[in-house]
Amino acid sequence: MKKDKKISKPVEPEATYRWKGRLWLEGAEGTFLGYGRVVLLERIAEFGSISRAARSMEMSYKHAWDLVASMNRQAPAPLIETAAGGKGGGGTKLTEAGREAIELFRSAHGRLQEFLAKESTALLDAMTKKP
Amino acid sequence: MKKDKKISKPVEPEATYRWKGRLWLEGAEGTFLGYGRVVLLERIAEFGSISRAARSMEMSYKHAWDLVASMNRQAPAPLIETAAGGKGGGGTKLTEAGREAIELFRSAHGRLQEFLAKESTALLDAMTKKP
Repeated sequence: MKKDKKISKPVEPEATYRWKGRLWLEGAEGTFLGYGRVVLLERIAEFGSISRAARSMEMSYKHAWDLVASMNRQAPAPLIETAAGGKGGGGTKLTEAGREAIELFRSAHGRLQEFLAKESTALLDAMTKKP
Repeated sequence: MKKDKKISKPVEPEATYRWKGRLWLEGAEGTFLGYGRVVLLERIAEFGSISRAARSMEMSYKHAWDLVASMNRQAPAPLIETAAGGKGGGGTKLTEAGREAIELFRSAHGRLQEFLAKESTALLDAMTKKP
């Protein structure tokens, strides 16, 4: 099929392809760590509060609480600790196990991004070698 | 750790973690090829019919047709060809470009599974080395 380059925008299909992906760590109940869960852990560490972390992600408090409970149940040791009441209310903290879980996910996520970038480069190379 | 198979199912928490993932190829409009789309191509090749392929996946004909149209628009050459009407109705066929698209996706998907298996093994190795 002939294309009239004068009347249409130049189309470079091979430049538009890109591999994308996601990964998650499954535990005893299904998803244990995924991208959203890890961002939630990071926000809890930042804000010291599940409700503020949830609000910053436009997530309901209930949903955030359920995710934290799910992670805590499936982890070898709790990732988030909540100190009850007292003057000024309790504090919510990321534990050492929580820091390790973030690092574990972030590093695998980084390697997945490298994998996808390599796959994309290989695909574009293969396509530009074609007649 | 000793296990008594008589009184409780052995719990091996470290054996329950597994990396899972998915990948898709983005084109000019967003998703071009993903797992479901590629299964649809394979089913169309098997049945010679979009409607039978859709039914076998419990997918509406409209949805299947939209996916095929999306793939055909984003591919360098159409992946599915439909011969119109005639005696006995038209035939729907996977093209050579369609076969290549399936192979492209299946091979990247296979490499992703290898990546995930390696990540899972490395994680379990790291966990069993811990005190």
